[in-house]
Amino acid sequence: MTFAALPKPPYYVVTFASIRTDGDNGYTDMAVRMGELAAQQPGYLGIESARGPDGFGITNSFWADEESIRGWKCVVDHLAAQRSGRETWYEQYEVRIGRIERAYGFNKPA
Amino acid sequence: MTFAALPKPPYYVVTFASIRTDGDNGYTDMAVRMGELAAQQPGYLGIESARGPDGFGITNSFWADEESIRGWKCVVDHLAAQRSGRETWYEQYEVRIGRIERAYGFNKPA
Repeated sequence: MTFAALPKPPYYVVTFASIRTDGDNGYTDMAVRMGELAAQQPGYLGIESARGPDGFGITNSFWADEESIRGWKCVVDHLAAQRSGRETWYEQYEVRIGRIERAYGFNKPA
Repeated sequence: MTFAALPKPPYYVVTFASIRTDGDNGYTDMAVRMGELAAQQPGYLGIESARGPDGFGITNSFWADEESIRGWKCVVDHLAAQRSGRETWYEQYEVRIGRIERAYGFNKPA
């Protein structure tokens, strides 16, 4: 996992924080498929994700506008309905959707 | 790490994605201190954090308004200046600041 290459703000973020259930239950396949589908979605800008050894994870996906987020939610809901459903993979999750107004970064000189 | 207990939107997020340098170099102490200082800051709403085994991490902190984010940045800059500086702890980081407009979640029934 590395940094998403994003344009200058404004753009949108969907921040998805979650605690996984025990066992894989198709999760890894689903996560790979989700990443592929996201990247094909109109308005997709990039994704960043981390999950610690305690099972708590954060995935931030970045989008050009709210319309593309609505499109993405349809895809996610459809995929969850096709498979065993999100309750199989997650104990709990929290989704927050916002508009990124400004951004800055630091890259250590080699 | 667990979920931040947040009010209804709108509120603000600072999403901090980072890759760590090798070695601790005071990082763990600093991270604990940062968490304590954040929680004392006016407008602080909560924090969520995850770092995977590959070293890529995301910390989302949540704030009541932009003024409280500016106050927090002063604290962070001051702490980094007091210690060895952020270039000691991070290879790279990207900060994005945004306004959370809506939120929803799921909690698996026991």
